[in-house]
Amino acid sequence: MSLSPVLAKIDETLPEATDRLLELLRIPSISTDPAFKTDCDAAADWLVAELSSLGFDASKRSTPGHPMVVAHGDGPGLHVVFYGHYDVQPVDPLDLWDRDPFDPQIEDTPAGKVIRGRGSSDDKGQLMTFVEACRAWKAVHGSLPIKISFFFEGEEESGSPSLIPFMKENADELSADVALICDTGLFDRDTPAITTMLRGLLGEELTITGPNKDLHSGMYGGAAMNPIRVLSKVIAGLHDDQGRITLPGFYDGVPELPAEVAQQWRDLGFDSDGFLGEVGLSSPAGEADRTPLEMIWSRPTCEVNGIWGGYTGEGFKTVLPSEAHAKISFRLVGTQDPHAIRKAFRDYVRSALPADCEVSFSAHGASPAAQMSIELPAFEQARAALSDEWPKPAAYVGCGGSIPIAGYFKEYLETDAMLIGFGNDDDAIHSPNEKYDLRSFHKGIRSWARVLDALAG
Amino acid sequence: MSLSPVLAKIDETLPEATDRLLELLRIPSISTDPAFKTDCDAAADWLVAELSSLGFDASKRSTPGHPMVVAHGDGPGLHVVFYGHYDVQPVDPLDLWDRDPFDPQIEDTPAGKVIRGRGSSDDKGQLMTFVEACRAWKAVHGSLPIKISFFFEGEEESGSPSLIPFMKENADELSADVALICDTGLFDRDTPAITTMLRGLLGEELTITGPNKDLHSGMYGGAAMNPIRVLSKVIAGLHDDQGRITLPGFYDGVPELPAEVAQQWRDLGFDSDGFLGEVGLSSPAGEADRTPLEMIWSRPTCEVNGIWGGYTGEGFKTVLPSEAHAKISFRLVGTQDPHAIRKAFRDYVRSALPADCEVSFSAHGASPAAQMSIELPAFEQARAALSDEWPKPAAYVGCGGSIPIAGYFKEYLETDAMLIGFGNDDDAIHSPNEKYDLRSFHKGIRSWARVLDALAG
Repeated sequence: MSLSPVLAKIDETLPEATDRLLELLRIPSISTDPAFKTDCDAAADWLVAELSSLGFDASKRSTPGHPMVVAHGDGPGLHVVFYGHYDVQPVDPLDLWDRDPFDPQIEDTPAGKVIRGRGSSDDKGQLMTFVEACRAWKAVHGSLPIKISFFFEGEEESGSPSLIPFMKENADELSADVALICDTGLFDRDTPAITTMLRGLLGEELTITGPNKDLHSGMYGGAAMNPIRVLSKVIAGLHDDQGRITLPGFYDGVPELPAEVAQQWRDLGFDSDGFLGEVGLSSPAGEADRTPLEMIWSRPTCEVNGIWGGYTGEGFKTVLPSEAHAKISFRLVGTQDPHAIRKAFRDYVRSALPADCEVSFSAHGASPAAQMSIELPAFEQARAALSDEWPKPAAYVGCGGSIPIAGYFKEYLETDAMLIGFGNDDDAIHSPNEKYDLRSFHKGIRSWARVLDALAG
Repeated sequence: MSLSPVLAKIDETLPEATDRLLELLRIPSISTDPAFKTDCDAAADWLVAELSSLGFDASKRSTPGHPMVVAHGDGPGLHVVFYGHYDVQPVDPLDLWDRDPFDPQIEDTPAGKVIRGRGSSDDKGQLMTFVEACRAWKAVHGSLPIKISFFFEGEEESGSPSLIPFMKENADELSADVALICDTGLFDRDTPAITTMLRGLLGEELTITGPNKDLHSGMYGGAAMNPIRVLSKVIAGLHDDQGRITLPGFYDGVPELPAEVAQQWRDLGFDSDGFLGEVGLSSPAGEADRTPLEMIWSRPTCEVNGIWGGYTGEGFKTVLPSEAHAKISFRLVGTQDPHAIRKAFRDYVRSALPADCEVSFSAHGASPAAQMSIELPAFEQARAALSDEWPKPAAYVGCGGSIPIAGYFKEYLETDAMLIGFGNDDDAIHSPNEKYDLRSFHKGIRSWARVLDALAG
């Protein structure tokens, strides 16, 4: 079947495709906040309706959390399963948004048109590139080039509690020759990327308790242990002066980058100054002997994502608080074991507590890092197809973010995953004013059409 | 004039006196929160009306903040000015209160009846002990035993921004032979106390900024500096392993306790285990070589009163935040200079910042510690009067809290201050479920009647 008319169809129908994406973006499907449960459900319904209208056998599947969407479309040869997530991050601090995060619009910017709104890049805009590629192919040829299944989840931004049980229970239905995942970025504006290394993620929330109630710092200050002081010391002790994480055994399973990969990354000409400068920084903050690209693609980290305790309102209150809290996450690489690191973290915190302080923990997800099987033919086929669409040849890259699904496809479905996405570093995902370049959306759809054509052989 | 009928009158009219206090407690005069501005005003009006009804020449005086209340009543001999504050602390966390903080009531407890509600002990219940003593004296004798002025402020819990200017502008009117201040506690349930050492207070709020916006910790984690990590290190560095504060010059002006005072304090038989045990603690947290009584009465401290940054809501958000904030206060003793310490703190924080981080500060009050003139005859007269009322003799004690007004009376009005109060350590001031023992209220009124009688000679 011919590719050219499909690409032409995509170009012609871009306005309608964009309108459909805006419709999906208007649904505030924030998965981590129970207040948006019905909106998550509505987003799943919307996807089922879209895929059904394209002739897929689509259904919403309930879970103990937000529903999954599964769809199947028949075709010859290879069978791919496409994964994306319809849930989005919370929007606070809302006052830093220039517009309603769920009233998306197309904006003209000096760098071109962008689709502005929560989820435009992460991940609704990205998942719709594949849906629209299938639509165009079917519109032109009346059938799909290969056998295609869809698998959308609605809990990716909240630790995916239902994902593994669902994949295990539906392993036969969700397995395929290759999984395609669209939740990553371009290397740069002109260079498409296939992500072959993904960091894992381990989340911990902890509460340190000192006195059994809030105290007056005048009456007790000096004699009673302040849990904020203890928490600060715990956090301060997680890194040494060289930026390395101090937990015993933390670097077990962290591989050194092979010399040829290191060389390939150097050849990419990554603009470290620009990457940091974009967010107002000038010095890389990680391990002293690593480049910023290594820090974010191939080195593990520990970040405090939130901290709170005592009086945080207007004015001043001389309270000596009973409790202090933090949310801490670790990005993992290589074969680092999230469960061993969780244990090392908890042991460290407990050992750092002075007399009279107690700590409680709650776990927020634990996924190891993932390494893709680039020796599979599909990888080189896809790389060639992407290189045809974009100004520069496609690159194999790492990714600092955690996309546990890639590892799960391998572990639970014996299906190798290929990560191709079209986001840009300035998309402000998880931040106020998230956007997706209209160019990413357009060329993303075209890219998938080319990849489908290449996989069809 | 005879004291006995005054004491009898106090005993007889306790129910009415208690009702008046409950009325004042119902006014939510939280001075630090602008939402309660009209309530602060209403509390001032209430006091003016009460004092006027007792024949005092009372008026509300406006300031750039909350109003002052000033009143004068003529009498023979000595002139005293009585100070108290009608504003109260905020009430959060509200969910830890067993009842509405501003719907006070008398409760039966195993330890006796208590007046439950915000401000019952700090300071509305205390200031009303003196008002009621004057009322009873006047009811019995038709006149006051000495010349008495009142001076109430409404900004004590929010740094007293208007206090010094007001005292300077009205120095002649507010000066007296002795100032009486009722904002402190008993030494223990049976031992009244005259507080002769007060810690000073210095408040600082700081914001550390790293990246210019909230980032995705997957995309930037490792390469971008996390301001929570920086803030934690700043806080952790404020104390050494022995619990001493590390700011250069911090201990300049901190006196060693004279041997005789140290002995007197040891003789008080302070129950350190009980003091800490009451709030769920067992080990003193301050300087390693000090007793808990020294820690809270005669040693300086540094406490974090509040901390916040990043995502603090339900669930998890892998944000690398742009800002982290803390409210920090120092309790000062001896001749420590609050301004020098503020500078040392800011210099320390700036020197601890890594490249790319910035800090901004805002000041919340700066008052030095105060030492009373116990050689004045009024001190021994009052001590004898208090010893007559309570089961055990009155003691000269220190106080961990900061009552800057005592120093201001000396500095701006050349008036020596005497601090006498009837609070208990378990009053939960600044905390949920604040209370004032009905016994403190009753014997407090009787104590002031005795002190007035003693001062009248």
